[in-house]
Amino acid sequence: MEMLKTWADCAADLIAVAAGRKPADLVLRNARLVNVQSREVLDGWDVAVACGRFAYVGPDAEHTIGPDTQVVDLQGQYLIPGLCDGHMHIESGMLTPAEFARAVIPHGTTTMFTDPHEIANVFGLRGVKLMHDEAMLQPVNIYTQMPSCAPSAPGLETTGFEIGPEDVAEAMTWPGIIGLGEMMNFPGVVAGDDMLLAEMAATARTGKVIGGHYASPDLGPDFHAYAAGGPADDHEGVAEDDAIARVRQGMRAMLRLGSAWYDVEKQITAVTERGLDPRNFILCTDDCHSGTLVNEGHMNRVLRHAIECGCDPLIALQMATINTATHFGLERELGSIAPGRRADMIVTSDLRNLPIETVYARGQKVAENGTCLVDCPHLDWPADTRASVHLGKEITAADFEIAAPDGANQVKAKVIGVVENQAPTQALTADLTVRDGIVEGQGPVCQIALVERHKGTGGVVNGFVSGFDYKGQMAIASTVAHDSHHMIVVGTDRENMAKAVMRLAEIGGGVSVFKDGEELALVELPIAGLMSDDFASRVADKAQNMVEAMAACGCTLNNAYMQHSLLALPVIPELRISDLGLVDVTRFELTELFEKDSL
Amino acid sequence: MEMLKTWADCAADLIAVAAGRKPADLVLRNARLVNVQSREVLDGWDVAVACGRFAYVGPDAEHTIGPDTQVVDLQGQYLIPGLCDGHMHIESGMLTPAEFARAVIPHGTTTMFTDPHEIANVFGLRGVKLMHDEAMLQPVNIYTQMPSCAPSAPGLETTGFEIGPEDVAEAMTWPGIIGLGEMMNFPGVVAGDDMLLAEMAATARTGKVIGGHYASPDLGPDFHAYAAGGPADDHEGVAEDDAIARVRQGMRAMLRLGSAWYDVEKQITAVTERGLDPRNFILCTDDCHSGTLVNEGHMNRVLRHAIECGCDPLIALQMATINTATHFGLERELGSIAPGRRADMIVTSDLRNLPIETVYARGQKVAENGTCLVDCPHLDWPADTRASVHLGKEITAADFEIAAPDGANQVKAKVIGVVENQAPTQALTADLTVRDGIVEGQGPVCQIALVERHKGTGGVVNGFVSGFDYKGQMAIASTVAHDSHHMIVVGTDRENMAKAVMRLAEIGGGVSVFKDGEELALVELPIAGLMSDDFASRVADKAQNMVEAMAACGCTLNNAYMQHSLLALPVIPELRISDLGLVDVTRFELTELFEKDSL
Repeated sequence: MEMLKTWADCAADLIAVAAGRKPADLVLRNARLVNVQSREVLDGWDVAVACGRFAYVGPDAEHTIGPDTQVVDLQGQYLIPGLCDGHMHIESGMLTPAEFARAVIPHGTTTMFTDPHEIANVFGLRGVKLMHDEAMLQPVNIYTQMPSCAPSAPGLETTGFEIGPEDVAEAMTWPGIIGLGEMMNFPGVVAGDDMLLAEMAATARTGKVIGGHYASPDLGPDFHAYAAGGPADDHEGVAEDDAIARVRQGMRAMLRLGSAWYDVEKQITAVTERGLDPRNFILCTDDCHSGTLVNEGHMNRVLRHAIECGCDPLIALQMATINTATHFGLERELGSIAPGRRADMIVTSDLRNLPIETVYARGQKVAENGTCLVDCPHLDWPADTRASVHLGKEITAADFEIAAPDGANQVKAKVIGVVENQAPTQALTADLTVRDGIVEGQGPVCQIALVERHKGTGGVVNGFVSGFDYKGQMAIASTVAHDSHHMIVVGTDRENMAKAVMRLAEIGGGVSVFKDGEELALVELPIAGLMSDDFASRVADKAQNMVEAMAACGCTLNNAYMQHSLLALPVIPELRISDLGLVDVTRFELTELFEKDSL
Repeated sequence: MEMLKTWADCAADLIAVAAGRKPADLVLRNARLVNVQSREVLDGWDVAVACGRFAYVGPDAEHTIGPDTQVVDLQGQYLIPGLCDGHMHIESGMLTPAEFARAVIPHGTTTMFTDPHEIANVFGLRGVKLMHDEAMLQPVNIYTQMPSCAPSAPGLETTGFEIGPEDVAEAMTWPGIIGLGEMMNFPGVVAGDDMLLAEMAATARTGKVIGGHYASPDLGPDFHAYAAGGPADDHEGVAEDDAIARVRQGMRAMLRLGSAWYDVEKQITAVTERGLDPRNFILCTDDCHSGTLVNEGHMNRVLRHAIECGCDPLIALQMATINTATHFGLERELGSIAPGRRADMIVTSDLRNLPIETVYARGQKVAENGTCLVDCPHLDWPADTRASVHLGKEITAADFEIAAPDGANQVKAKVIGVVENQAPTQALTADLTVRDGIVEGQGPVCQIALVERHKGTGGVVNGFVSGFDYKGQMAIASTVAHDSHHMIVVGTDRENMAKAVMRLAEIGGGVSVFKDGEELALVELPIAGLMSDDFASRVADKAQNMVEAMAACGCTLNNAYMQHSLLALPVIPELRISDLGLVDVTRFELTELFEKDSL
């Protein structure tokens, strides 16, 4: 792919094309052009492209056409800017940046602001750089937000690597870094934590954007203190008041529709009913599974949904184009169809249903009728990034034996209670029997273990979980285990647990489901144990197969795999597991597996 | 004045105040707060200020009040952000930055984006730096736009210094430089002039804003080519279509109300009637005389006018606050009442008439009821900047003798025809008689001379002008002589012309009116021959006195002094004078004083 020149570097060419002295590379004629700057539809307009940028946008591009200019008559179809995802995690698709791009380009996404937070926990700054480097190879715009919080819960978990202010300062010098990723440790910001403030300062000093993440319904002084710390946006709002509060504080409200996030409908009423100025509202996905990308769409899905929620199509489109570009200081680079900007645009015949008929990125036709027409180059990922599962020893069933306190025949154990469709777990207890000195799960209570996989310590932390309804002899293991991404294995049977764990060790990470000693499903995620570099459709098929395998084991929970992968995230209440032990997230401290009064 | 810390450097303090751990410096309570981010009026809101920035903006700041906190009960008065002037020239007020600031602070202006284009013609980059340095001393925000076009007409005039791409690149490293000043040479941009493109590229590479100036009604390919070159805004529009065209090209339309510019009323209908998204509209003054500042106001005058033109007061306010801040990449620094921003705000009891009752800048009360309460520090201007009139010799009446071609008794001379209320002049001719070999003005035709004053060459270029209606024996000389700022003297009598010129040489520049050998009026502009460091009210009085003196000489033209000072500006048609000769601006070339057929 030819390097895109800066506007300044090709200004002479753009001027010459617009003035009629030099022919354009591409001219699209007779469009119903959606101008997101003026918020108008301009009938019969033309655009002329040169050097991958818009050279002329106006009523008549005849004078820009030469013998070698490619001319397309749009016959009155709409021409809209390429769509921007204001905040997202590529790893959530279980895909590399290249394969994520290939999956979303046919949906009209031409710009993403992505926080490679997951790989940061596995490979630290180096992992972020690798994601950044692959992102930079793509034919669409993928800007990287430098992860801010690895580990997410310092002192309660051990990550593969940590991120600190020096890492942030270094990342700010990379060409594709657009700002700091979501500052999730909001209690830390409110408390004035030095390290977090240093990360935000390192970002602010380069004039880049500090991403926010205030995941609390409390809109009192703590919220105001968080806003005073510097985060410039937030995608954690879930109610109209959340969105309004953020905008009133001079933050941008990012409204999220991910695979499992449904936060647009509740918040967009701030614009559609309360009449707030829409300029500070931005649409984003945050997390999309490969299945969503393959079957439902990406930002086109979000936009369509926002319109269904009553938002004017032009205003909704601004929320996925120019508002996003302005937020990140890229207004003169992308997000609108105007001279000098990257020629990222979509041909569609309907502004409400938004069929994505043709997609252009940097003036190149990159997709047509759902098919990606362009190469999405892969980075040559270093061998060690494909071998990130370091157990340090062979894990056997014995590693999952939970010894009872001396002499106990029965114990009262703490149990992580999974609740359908809710991110928080419940801190339950269960009376469990002891057999040969070993505590056994029973009924709805099965075993969970966190298997250390970054440093090969051989560490295994055992506990109990309920709510999955697994039956028979089974186990499911995953190296996607937010946020520290060790390995979480849940099972009713220790032999199956050991098999699933060793299977992931063998293939370098992913998800494995075992039943009665046989593998029912496997999703290979060889890169960092988080991502596949296979096509999204194949990953989606395997993920679907995994969901069916979980159901075959008795689990019919909505989004059960997401629940599984979040059980080691010690920032969401109430009870979680980490490599350091069981975590009481209501108190932010490690806790014992057995109740004291159980002896 | 204490240095203002960056948001990042005082984030810990702001967080602590908002969280209630540390008392605020200042709290304003019970405001009707105008939130320009959400476009709402919020009743009963409070703001808390620390480190000169907003720490808390919300419904109740009680928890931020300590024993030493200054608390003001606004009793339901409106609190609005301090006003921003999106583009202006301080020199137009004939005042230094300090005295300009002192004049406009009581009008609620707390931020200006100023292009010191005039001094750039006299002292080059050094002059710009001096203006920048004085601007940086002020208690309000004065950002400098690096002048782009000195000389304005290369080859047709000689300035004191020239500005080139290296100067632009150097200026971009100064702390108070916000971008490139208006790119006036629009034909040069359209033609792809290398030097102009290099200046714009030097600006764009630092991520700063390229100011535009497309002073033509032609909205065809040339206009599009100009937009493709990179200018990000334009204040030269005069009609609704101009504003719409600019916004559609992704430029910001700056609507101008100066002392002599009335471009808001015609263009604001793009918003009020055509319904365009108002976010890309910005209010500015461009040029304000001291008299306007003293008697009518500054940005408050513009805002009031925009509202009178039918604009919603909140939308108009956005055009003078957040829109401007966003345009210059300062949205998180100023332009709204939100955490982290500079605490620049105005207390007013009416959003339509906009009485400016109290003004705060960086949390400090800077004006109340029309009185500036704060020191506006002067730079110690170097001695040579107060001695910028270098004639190289004594100028006498003989220097203004215009020799007739050999043997002629009568000549047909070209005459610069001044037209009331129009910037363009007419290229007239007149049959003039010759006495003792010298051509004499007569009737409406009097003499004009451009006296070189930068390099002491002793150069005097003579010509004829009509339209001022001067009578009797008089002359008026001015070192404000756009854009090269030599000295323009117009007179009916060569002795008076010499006296007026020598008077300005004596005092270091300004405007002098002589009648019958006596000085009728004098405006001293000792700094660069352009500015006074006296109070605005005194400069305004002297300027008024000058206008009355011109009238006493028979001239009753509207804005006659502005006409005078523009007669050497060889970019406005049709006929001008420069240090190189008479300029035919319709052909952009030097021309002879006498018609060829006049011999």
